[in-house]
Amino acid sequence: MDLVQEMVNGSQRAVARAISVVENELPGWMELMKAVYPYTGRAYTVGVTGPTGSGKSTLVDRVARVMCNRGLSLGIIAIDPSSPFTGGALLGDRVRMHDALARENVFVRSLGTRGGLGGLSRATSDVIKILDAAGKEFILIETIGIGQDEIDIVKVADSCIVLSVPGLGDDIQTIKAGIMEIGDIFVVNKADRDGADHVAAMLTAMLGLASCANRWKQPVIKTVATERQGIDELVEHIMEHRRHLIDSDLLEMKRKERIGRDITKIVERKIAQYVNEQIQGMESLEHLIELVSSRREDPYSCAERLLRALEKRG
Amino acid sequence: MDLVQEMVNGSQRAVARAISVVENELPGWMELMKAVYPYTGRAYTVGVTGPTGSGKSTLVDRVARVMCNRGLSLGIIAIDPSSPFTGGALLGDRVRMHDALARENVFVRSLGTRGGLGGLSRATSDVIKILDAAGKEFILIETIGIGQDEIDIVKVADSCIVLSVPGLGDDIQTIKAGIMEIGDIFVVNKADRDGADHVAAMLTAMLGLASCANRWKQPVIKTVATERQGIDELVEHIMEHRRHLIDSDLLEMKRKERIGRDITKIVERKIAQYVNEQIQGMESLEHLIELVSSRREDPYSCAERLLRALEKRG
Repeated sequence: MDLVQEMVNGSQRAVARAISVVENELPGWMELMKAVYPYTGRAYTVGVTGPTGSGKSTLVDRVARVMCNRGLSLGIIAIDPSSPFTGGALLGDRVRMHDALARENVFVRSLGTRGGLGGLSRATSDVIKILDAAGKEFILIETIGIGQDEIDIVKVADSCIVLSVPGLGDDIQTIKAGIMEIGDIFVVNKADRDGADHVAAMLTAMLGLASCANRWKQPVIKTVATERQGIDELVEHIMEHRRHLIDSDLLEMKRKERIGRDITKIVERKIAQYVNEQIQGMESLEHLIELVSSRREDPYSCAERLLRALEKRG
Repeated sequence: MDLVQEMVNGSQRAVARAISVVENELPGWMELMKAVYPYTGRAYTVGVTGPTGSGKSTLVDRVARVMCNRGLSLGIIAIDPSSPFTGGALLGDRVRMHDALARENVFVRSLGTRGGLGGLSRATSDVIKILDAAGKEFILIETIGIGQDEIDIVKVADSCIVLSVPGLGDDIQTIKAGIMEIGDIFVVNKADRDGADHVAAMLTAMLGLASCANRWKQPVIKTVATERQGIDELVEHIMEHRRHLIDSDLLEMKRKERIGRDITKIVERKIAQYVNEQIQGMESLEHLIELVSSRREDPYSCAERLLRALEKRG
């Protein structure tokens, strides 16, 4: 396949085209992914998540610059869950970031579509594979950190960076248990503001409660991304976490788990699509809706009847 | 079932217990929903969505008070997509609102869990049914307006109110096309701020482009919820939209479509659960992961193989 060869040879245009095909599920997208797959497996993925206003875009931009200066090849994926309301400022930042980094051969892409076969997390995982096949050594994934989908997306990251920021309310509620588990590196950004030490101390205390012997000790570091303070240190921690995962065989394990999840999700979606088509084609659906609408039947019992009918059909 | 009888007789405690059972998918939750269903069908649902900071909680609170004063029985569902980062202020508002309204027999509930069988939107649709069966005439649903899930949740509303607010950036980007389609009533809240007229004019212009002959003409109104300005007018528009839907048989149609979606979703989820169990139990999954991990096979082809294997099993 020409497109895949162009991609692998490093054509940014081919990468952009491949992503469009896959994101929008254009004809042949799945064949394209099959052809891309053998070229994957080398890129290291880094997720960055945190609440609105924590400065994720700027931090990702600064980390990207440091990595570029070290001669690393980079891709950036900015997750924009198809919100009906855009954060204008955020989009503006991203577009500016895009311009500046594109000149240094960094591939930046916003993802917001939710297609049929798995939606945003499916698309993210496929875009990662495309950038990987195109030779990007590091892929930074920026999410807005709201909702389960975003937590799921973070699962595609080998290292996960969780941002906090002083002033969002300093009680324990601002950092929920779930986020402590997914974070490999904790960053208190905007650390020139009052309360940064307090947030860092609180994070350290919470991490202390959960730590155990031969595990990765999650660091808590302070940054001022706008001033490029702490960014080198952050990049060091990313590299260290990567070494830790490789040396302990955890990277291999993580990736195998991810493959298992990927396969299961694809199967589930395909079956859901099939079932959906089957149901829509049944004459009895109209009749069932009438029964439920008139309260002679409830939707759950109806679903059970449909399932039995589908079983009989095979 | 005792619990259902207590609920139908108006026990707030029974309602709270039923919601907990269903939200957390405790044993017997589906049987409970089946028993609840015959008592549903009378409540009218109103969705309220808009960007963070547009004053949704306050607006919902003021609308609830006006409706209470008119002698209507109310329930409020506040959607809180299981965010790892809580908006402390928002939660605080809601809790205060809860206290004040609970004294007037309004049932207020935050929903944040995503269970197995359909997640947040499944839970929302079931909680609506419980409140409906408990005799609530109007159910207000407040969502944070981010992401596809929230748009889906708005689909459970008979009337959908979309909030805007001056100062979030006044270019056309702040209101995306998708939101124009789901809104039945548009509200410019915090209308005592500069730029409110501009936002209202822009909304009206955008709605004008899409309007057609015998459809509902979506009104654009200005409110200052904190000062209770415009709230009576808003309630009037809700009542008018309700009458329009009833008179034109659109309410019946909407609800039948919703039933069709509900049934299909339940079937899809049940099958997904079943398939997931089947796959996890297959000895071959480990082998397939090895194949994919070593790049001898890709995940999509693997999924296709698994599907064929499942087909053979029946």
